[in-house]
Amino acid sequence: MEKVTTYKKVASHEAEKGTFNTCLLLYSGGLDTSVMLKWIQQEYDCDVIALTINIGQTADNLDAIKEKALKLGAKDVIVYDAKEEFAELCTEAVKANADYQGGYALGCPLGRVMISQLAVQFASEFGCEVIAHGCTGKGNDQVRFESYITTLNPELKIIAPVREWGMGREEEIAYAKENGIPVDQSKKSPYSYDENMWANTGEGGEIENPELIPPLENILKWANTPKNAPDEEELVEIEFKNGEPISLNGIQHETKDLIQTLNEIGGKHAVGVFHLIEDRVVGLKVRGVYENPAAHILIQAHKNLEQLVSTREENELKTMMDQKWAYLVYGAKYFEPVVDNIRAYINEQNKKVTGKVTVRLYKGNCDVVALSSPYSLFDENLATFNKSAAFNQNASSGFIELWNLPQKTAYQLKKTVKDEVVE
Amino acid sequence: MEKVTTYKKVASHEAEKGTFNTCLLLYSGGLDTSVMLKWIQQEYDCDVIALTINIGQTADNLDAIKEKALKLGAKDVIVYDAKEEFAELCTEAVKANADYQGGYALGCPLGRVMISQLAVQFASEFGCEVIAHGCTGKGNDQVRFESYITTLNPELKIIAPVREWGMGREEEIAYAKENGIPVDQSKKSPYSYDENMWANTGEGGEIENPELIPPLENILKWANTPKNAPDEEELVEIEFKNGEPISLNGIQHETKDLIQTLNEIGGKHAVGVFHLIEDRVVGLKVRGVYENPAAHILIQAHKNLEQLVSTREENELKTMMDQKWAYLVYGAKYFEPVVDNIRAYINEQNKKVTGKVTVRLYKGNCDVVALSSPYSLFDENLATFNKSAAFNQNASSGFIELWNLPQKTAYQLKKTVKDEVVE
Amino acid sequence: MEKVTTYKKVASHEAEKGTFNTCLLLYSGGLDTSVMLKWIQQEYDCDVIALTINIGQTADNLDAIKEKALKLGAKDVIVYDAKEEFAELCTEAVKANADYQGGYALGCPLGRVMISQLAVQFASEFGCEVIAHGCTGKGNDQVRFESYITTLNPELKIIAPVREWGMGREEEIAYAKENGIPVDQSKKSPYSYDENMWANTGEGGEIENPELIPPLENILKWANTPKNAPDEEELVEIEFKNGEPISLNGIQHETKDLIQTLNEIGGKHAVGVFHLIEDRVVGLKVRGVYENPAAHILIQAHKNLEQLVSTREENELKTMMDQKWAYLVYGAKYFEPVVDNIRAYINEQNKKVTGKVTVRLYKGNCDVVALSSPYSLFDENLATFNKSAAFNQNASSGFIELWNLPQKTAYQLKKTVKDEVVE
Amino acid sequence: MEKVTTYKKVASHEAEKGTFNTCLLLYSGGLDTSVMLKWIQQEYDCDVIALTINIGQTADNLDAIKEKALKLGAKDVIVYDAKEEFAELCTEAVKANADYQGGYALGCPLGRVMISQLAVQFASEFGCEVIAHGCTGKGNDQVRFESYITTLNPELKIIAPVREWGMGREEEIAYAKENGIPVDQSKKSPYSYDENMWANTGEGGEIENPELIPPLENILKWANTPKNAPDEEELVEIEFKNGEPISLNGIQHETKDLIQTLNEIGGKHAVGVFHLIEDRVVGLKVRGVYENPAAHILIQAHKNLEQLVSTREENELKTMMDQKWAYLVYGAKYFEPVVDNIRAYINEQNKKVTGKVTVRLYKGNCDVVALSSPYSLFDENLATFNKSAAFNQNASSGFIELWNLPQKTAYQLKKTVKDEVVE
Repeated sequence: MEKVTTYKKVASHEAEKGTFNTCLLLYSGGLDTSVMLKWIQQEYDCDVIALTINIGQTADNLDAIKEKALKLGAKDVIVYDAKEEFAELCTEAVKANADYQGGYALGCPLGRVMISQLAVQFASEFGCEVIAHGCTGKGNDQVRFESYITTLNPELKIIAPVREWGMGREEEIAYAKENGIPVDQSKKSPYSYDENMWANTGEGGEIENPELIPPLENILKWANTPKNAPDEEELVEIEFKNGEPISLNGIQHETKDLIQTLNEIGGKHAVGVFHLIEDRVVGLKVRGVYENPAAHILIQAHKNLEQLVSTREENELKTMMDQKWAYLVYGAKYFEPVVDNIRAYINEQNKKVTGKVTVRLYKGNCDVVALSSPYSLFDENLATFNKSAAFNQNASSGFIELWNLPQKTAYQLKKTVKDEVVE
Repeated sequence: MEKVTTYKKVASHEAEKGTFNTCLLLYSGGLDTSVMLKWIQQEYDCDVIALTINIGQTADNLDAIKEKALKLGAKDVIVYDAKEEFAELCTEAVKANADYQGGYALGCPLGRVMISQLAVQFASEFGCEVIAHGCTGKGNDQVRFESYITTLNPELKIIAPVREWGMGREEEIAYAKENGIPVDQSKKSPYSYDENMWANTGEGGEIENPELIPPLENILKWANTPKNAPDEEELVEIEFKNGEPISLNGIQHETKDLIQTLNEIGGKHAVGVFHLIEDRVVGLKVRGVYENPAAHILIQAHKNLEQLVSTREENELKTMMDQKWAYLVYGAKYFEPVVDNIRAYINEQNKKVTGKVTVRLYKGNCDVVALSSPYSLFDENLATFNKSAAFNQNASSGFIELWNLPQKTAYQLKKTVKDEVVE
Repeated sequence: MEKVTTYKKVASHEAEKGTFNTCLLLYSGGLDTSVMLKWIQQEYDCDVIALTINIGQTADNLDAIKEKALKLGAKDVIVYDAKEEFAELCTEAVKANADYQGGYALGCPLGRVMISQLAVQFASEFGCEVIAHGCTGKGNDQVRFESYITTLNPELKIIAPVREWGMGREEEIAYAKENGIPVDQSKKSPYSYDENMWANTGEGGEIENPELIPPLENILKWANTPKNAPDEEELVEIEFKNGEPISLNGIQHETKDLIQTLNEIGGKHAVGVFHLIEDRVVGLKVRGVYENPAAHILIQAHKNLEQLVSTREENELKTMMDQKWAYLVYGAKYFEPVVDNIRAYINEQNKKVTGKVTVRLYKGNCDVVALSSPYSLFDENLATFNKSAAFNQNASSGFIELWNLPQKTAYQLKKTVKDEVVE
Repeated sequence: MEKVTTYKKVASHEAEKGTFNTCLLLYSGGLDTSVMLKWIQQEYDCDVIALTINIGQTADNLDAIKEKALKLGAKDVIVYDAKEEFAELCTEAVKANADYQGGYALGCPLGRVMISQLAVQFASEFGCEVIAHGCTGKGNDQVRFESYITTLNPELKIIAPVREWGMGREEEIAYAKENGIPVDQSKKSPYSYDENMWANTGEGGEIENPELIPPLENILKWANTPKNAPDEEELVEIEFKNGEPISLNGIQHETKDLIQTLNEIGGKHAVGVFHLIEDRVVGLKVRGVYENPAAHILIQAHKNLEQLVSTREENELKTMMDQKWAYLVYGAKYFEPVVDNIRAYINEQNKKVTGKVTVRLYKGNCDVVALSSPYSLFDENLATFNKSAAFNQNASSGFIELWNLPQKTAYQLKKTVKDEVVE
């Protein structure tokens, strides 16, 4: 048993009572951050400004959120639409074929980058010395928010009320009731979600324990289950230029609209849903259910096109660079200079990722079925069976002899030495 | 235009006429190798022994093959059932989460390892100085056969009639007719296949050109299309011990039977079918359609279980080791000592890949929905939301401060220097 | 400025006053740990048992250390000779060509593994609930000790007095004088050292600031400067079996003796001295001066022999595996399962690292000048200029054509498309 | 025994007699290429234009070479000074810390890139349809020349006389005498060299066989042996901007001059001399002796400075990218698009590699002893012992707890399961 008593502030970036006047709260409008809005005012005797950023979460009513915050005593409320900026981060994820440990397109980690950047900017604009976030002490998001905020502006301090206040669910509800914070009694879902246009992440309940089968029909917010998806397949054509998606079915779109449309189409076809047991950066494992239809479609399409226009050497190394990117971005290192270097690598390779990709969607399946590109390295003359024109078959045996020389030499030597020299 | 005239032998492992008495022919019973059987006898004035190895290809009637070979003048015919040995290679592929460039479980490359090993063994047993294979001069398989055979026994020489004889399809058919070799006129399929229990690989026709959508309903041999698959999902439970699949739905199986059963179940549910534009080792790209239901199910199950029992550090590095293994095995380097080293790595990690995995199959979907293992690193006490016992949340902020220190320092320094020092 | 006031214990592995009876102190006999010996008794009102482990540090008089500890009130003093066990860790380092960021053979990180293992063992034997170490709060060694000790036995708690007591150098000396702890007033060296048979690490003074040139003649403890080294070169021959050094100049030695002898010979010739600005695991950089003559000679010899008996594929991947090993072991992850996997890789490759290596030592130079091995992949018939027997030069042009095909195709395509399609 | 009879042309890039009028010969002025000059005219009944490129080789008298070529019937002789262009390739090598398998800065591979580019350009300018090179059929350089030339212009064909003509040393000398080609009888050196300003590579004689100790005093062309080097050490200060060396001892130099000056200084101090058993791209091993004083000094200086201004994450990944770059450039893949991607990575990281480096040269030693940079990540406040201001030591224990969590969990679980579940 552990002697959890009161929370002790040890990080130099944690704000101490009495040292500041105004706190910027990352506000979602839900119970937790509403309780926080009140609690920070009381506990730290300071003004609170609420900041709500729209990066494409579908669940929120932003007007209602604003009103609620003001009612709870927020000195000011900022609601900011960052969908366009966020879509640029999503584009970077497409070029990096974003995939953390099997299908997770990094929706939440990228959302944290966006929110942190804007929070730092608004904190400066609104004279806030401190930023408060709603994350627990067991997850990745505290690491991301606190890392990014203090990286972008080391003068800013942090409050993390959930780590600090020591309230359980019941105490929190009691506190809410005492302080006139509306509590939605009907909501008995065991699941919690984090949502933006790039992914909806579900946790809690049967999702968490890998031994249980999560009942997707109760969990999914964006996507059908394959069973409930339409019986007719749908082909979509996505066009890329320099690795960036620019049009859907022949019509140019702003990236944010393209993503949101693909979420609808893909969600309808039950595409981009993953069960994933992921390694958190704080050192423990947890399972989540991820819905990222648009991300999945775009990344599948991109990856196949990239592979078509890249050499074998490029394709092998790109996988590694992509994985490195994903582990770093997941791990709260988006502003690490190594990510700048990897991005330069990725952008260079993507200069030629231009072309059209046809994807077939059907009951959970997302198959890239046709591709074309001016940079396509498929060469009909070289590859097809019956045309011997361009490809010199007489070169093969010489190639084989030298390609195989080290393998043959090493293998035979090992065999011989084993027999002769070493016991 | 190229001056392809007559084939010139330049590799030191190519057999010259008049230097040997007996040739072992890798014989499938199809038109190509039947023509070869005759042609080698005539062209090289030697005896030919036909070798047919059963590694789980479903299409072949082995008795008929034997008879046909004898009728065409084979001095001897060897038909060997290697399903059990081959299943061991498949198990190695499971542990390595075999995946070349997106879903290809390396059926054909592994088949070539098996066939080469046995061919070398039978050549020695039956006194053959030369081995002949039926591969073209544009593909991977010539590289694999010639590399492996000469690696395992550098005394052996090679004949590759297709590279050498310069016959096109029509000339080959004419030759067959002249020599009493049966030609199946009805067979007008544009597709060619390579098949063993680990994969069925289709090439040719619309498959080859990436701009065309391959008509799967005409192409697939093992698997339904998702549309034709049953409307009911099916759960299968696979048990692993030390990374090796040992039972299916609670019943222990020999690996070869487990694979063949899963091919049926998975094929029924349209699982494990991929379009893949792959980089051949001889330097060109080609698209194939791969059916590997059992491989796909086993590898998905294995990968998820492995991830559950391995740390974040292990999971990151394993992806790279697996990819390295796949590129090497694809690239005709199975006997490279570096593969021994990688295998040692993989086996060490797999010592703890023990447990049960539930997979849901449905119309092309293959989802790992539940897992259990005595080595599971998921720890309910650590991970779940409401129990704070084991996980010390008060450690987080200190962790974050040091985890972030290099990022913060580097980012701020760059910003400052940009402002001050560098123009 | 930071509000460093009193130290707050937040990690669950930190020992609280009043919760234990006996503390095992990692005792070096120096001022810091002598002050600790007293301070822990007073501050925690507990018994202290002193543990001193001999892993080949040359500076210490172990008998005097024992006596001193008893005089300062230690309930018991354990002095343990672990040179033989430690030499096994050094052997592992040889196989991994241990090199962190340029020449550091990981002497200190490996020493911490050894000490932690023994400390956990003695703690259990002597009934200690707590282990105390003398490390500061800014270095790697606190991470190593606390990680390893709690990994090996999570029941054990830790005290880190230097982090906790808040004394500066003057206060510490005052405390020592008050408590009858001898203070060597003559010792005014600005440098501090960590020493074991694998490396002597110097820090402090001009060493720390990379802009200053460290005066090696005042700093080095083991090695001559090149200027002071003998004018005559010396050849040493080291024999390896399966990657492990077994004899020196034809005479078999226990590894620990071989290392100590090579430290003398190599130190005399000024070999194995490095200036290194290293990245600490806690996120900051610091420069050290490293003396590791034996390590440097053994690793140079081993690396060259390994390269001789390994293929190009092996040599390329081994560099990466070695670096991964070094970063992990440096980073307090010796017991991470990923290190077990890497070790399996390394051991597999080292099975053939058998042979003799001649190294020339001269005024700082350590050159491998001759090598022989039954597994040598150098083949005179293949490589030399004038004998064309074994190597088939006629294979080259075919090899070149296919080796180059992807490069040529991609380059030409890029050029063409640039001209035609893309602006 | 091998039936080497007459050379057969199989690559589609090999020139056939009678298909062209003019051949551009890569001409060094030595015996081999002089014999070739004559032989090609006779054998192919064509004009020959000789091309000699000056990339800093010190041994050649370019005027005499020109005259000799004309005397031997060259239709034209081009002598081109490419030192400035070549220095740009050397700069790229500095940024990539060029090192193939232990100290080889890739002088020869980079020289081949330069020569190929210029040869293709001059071939077009002078109307040559074919380029001839003097390489043997066992080395890397044939692969580099033929790959690069056909990559840059696939219309060009190749002649490789040494592969083709089947003359041994004696026959070649006889041929020379018959054709009035001067043969230097006095020259009995067993060593052959390839030289440009970035490296002098020696092969042959005792160098080749790893079991022999090469007599450096007879072999070295540029460098003293450590014994013969001056008794006084010398400090040089090199300044870098964005990873490129711009000044030496405070004086700005063009890169080519900086390199040539450093070759003199470094050669005098016996710096940058390596024995290396390298893996050739054609699959065999050979030992060479490399002299690359300037390269070694510049790369040591650059690597240390880069490490100072880069984070731990950057330093770890850069090693890998550098090695990848070196293996590719060595392996005749300079124009592979993957090298473009790696270069983008390297250039991004090098944007901050700006500063001054002091290197101490003495009898073979080349030690970076001091560094300064506006981007230095060494922070005196963070790192030094006695100032606790900036670094928060109270964060350490929390960091350690979470940093260690996966290791501890996995280790304990393995121990427990071993005891309980698995036999």
